[in-house]
Amino acid sequence: MKALKIIKIGGSIIDQPDALDDFLSEFSKLEGPKLLVHGGGKLATDLAEKLNVEVKLVDGRRITDINTLDIITMVYAGKVNKKIISKLQRNHCNSIGFTGADSNTIVSDKRPEKPVDFGYVGDIKHVNIETIQLLLKQHITPVFCAITHDGNGQLLNTNADTIASEIAIAFSELYNVELYYCFEKSGVLQNVENDNSVIKNIDKNSYAKLLGQNNIAAGMLPKLANAFHAINNQVHKVCIGKPEMLFNKNSKFTTIQN
Amino acid sequence: MKALKIIKIGGSIIDQPDALDDFLSEFSKLEGPKLLVHGGGKLATDLAEKLNVEVKLVDGRRITDINTLDIITMVYAGKVNKKIISKLQRNHCNSIGFTGADSNTIVSDKRPEKPVDFGYVGDIKHVNIETIQLLLKQHITPVFCAITHDGNGQLLNTNADTIASEIAIAFSELYNVELYYCFEKSGVLQNVENDNSVIKNIDKNSYAKLLGQNNIAAGMLPKLANAFHAINNQVHKVCIGKPEMLFNKNSKFTTIQN
Repeated sequence: MKALKIIKIGGSIIDQPDALDDFLSEFSKLEGPKLLVHGGGKLATDLAEKLNVEVKLVDGRRITDINTLDIITMVYAGKVNKKIISKLQRNHCNSIGFTGADSNTIVSDKRPEKPVDFGYVGDIKHVNIETIQLLLKQHITPVFCAITHDGNGQLLNTNADTIASEIAIAFSELYNVELYYCFEKSGVLQNVENDNSVIKNIDKNSYAKLLGQNNIAAGMLPKLANAFHAINNQVHKVCIGKPEMLFNKNSKFTTIQN
Repeated sequence: MKALKIIKIGGSIIDQPDALDDFLSEFSKLEGPKLLVHGGGKLATDLAEKLNVEVKLVDGRRITDINTLDIITMVYAGKVNKKIISKLQRNHCNSIGFTGADSNTIVSDKRPEKPVDFGYVGDIKHVNIETIQLLLKQHITPVFCAITHDGNGQLLNTNADTIASEIAIAFSELYNVELYYCFEKSGVLQNVENDNSVIKNIDKNSYAKLLGQNNIAAGMLPKLANAFHAINNQVHKVCIGKPEMLFNKNSKFTTIQN
């Protein structure tokens, strides 16, 4: 089967215009079918502050009320997604922006209000690959932001890592899917303070051990859960690290193994 | 040739959620290939006010500085476009949102800075129909907002009426294109104060006469210029009026004739 690269970017790669430009320039040169998934970085929080929309948290996790959903939709699907698309076009990477509502690609259920009501947050139910596949065949690169819909007129804020893993799984029957989680660290670190302590390979046994040692950064846990979910569901390759892992053969990163 | 309906909505249809819902419900039922173009109503102005971004005008026309472009991108491509898409999906009208940057569909030149520098405003240079046509063939409805790009990484604010007419012209080799400009009035009015004074047909002679009489609302002039541009360039049918003209055979509207 042909390879399909699915790349998720987040964190400071999106917040820093130069880092984003550099990434998009290298990304454009990647050969073969590819798909990009992005979060919104800190821009949504910045806009919420400017608009005096209070950020509500429960257990450190953000609640998506209707005003926050509006902000997220404007920043993710508008500002960030269209900036990425216009820059990819400049680099002659023909691309098209998506939310999960576009062409009904990602249908979610609004998360149940018990035990905690997170508001307009979606848990992915189904990925429809037909339109994406049609575009990939035309050498067009789909670029997804972290929004899905419930099929009944409601947009939903949805974790970008999960969107990437669910798209990867949905395509694993048609392609050897390679899933890359790109962020500002060089991978899963043995010691969070030391970017040189990258763990080269993690399988389910060493993952259980790491969890037992309470050694993994809290922000890394959902990423790892998504990574294992993908590798356990026919995704060919799952890697976590800096974007350099895609472009430079000598860079360090973490590979997830099942 | 098959018919293709291109429908532009603007004004209060976008500002009033109930009017938008009603329109989208009827639009979803229209048979055959169709394409929607929308502006942003007053929502962009509202957001600019909330963010204390000053609206700069020259001769009553808005200047699109970089902050205004950001706001327009968030409101048009984010909030409004994705609300429309999610509501169309609810109505089982499979649709996908576009700016002109997406799949490089509409390439513009930034308007020259002389005599007046309007900022990040685009004049359309070329419409690429391949991807749109691919989607239409799959019974997917493209929904365009009023943003294009220069192909060199710059998004540009672009008149939605012009986007509709240029897409209509670009498709006129493949389809009998019907172009409908929908807004809050019943058509071009003989007397701006009287919504019953709809002029049923306007051809270039009666248009010249109307212009001479100084009888047309200022806001209608660019719409009429776009309408005549379309009808003079192989577009099959051009109508101006309330959305009802699409759904109710008894409603009044203005037809442009060449």
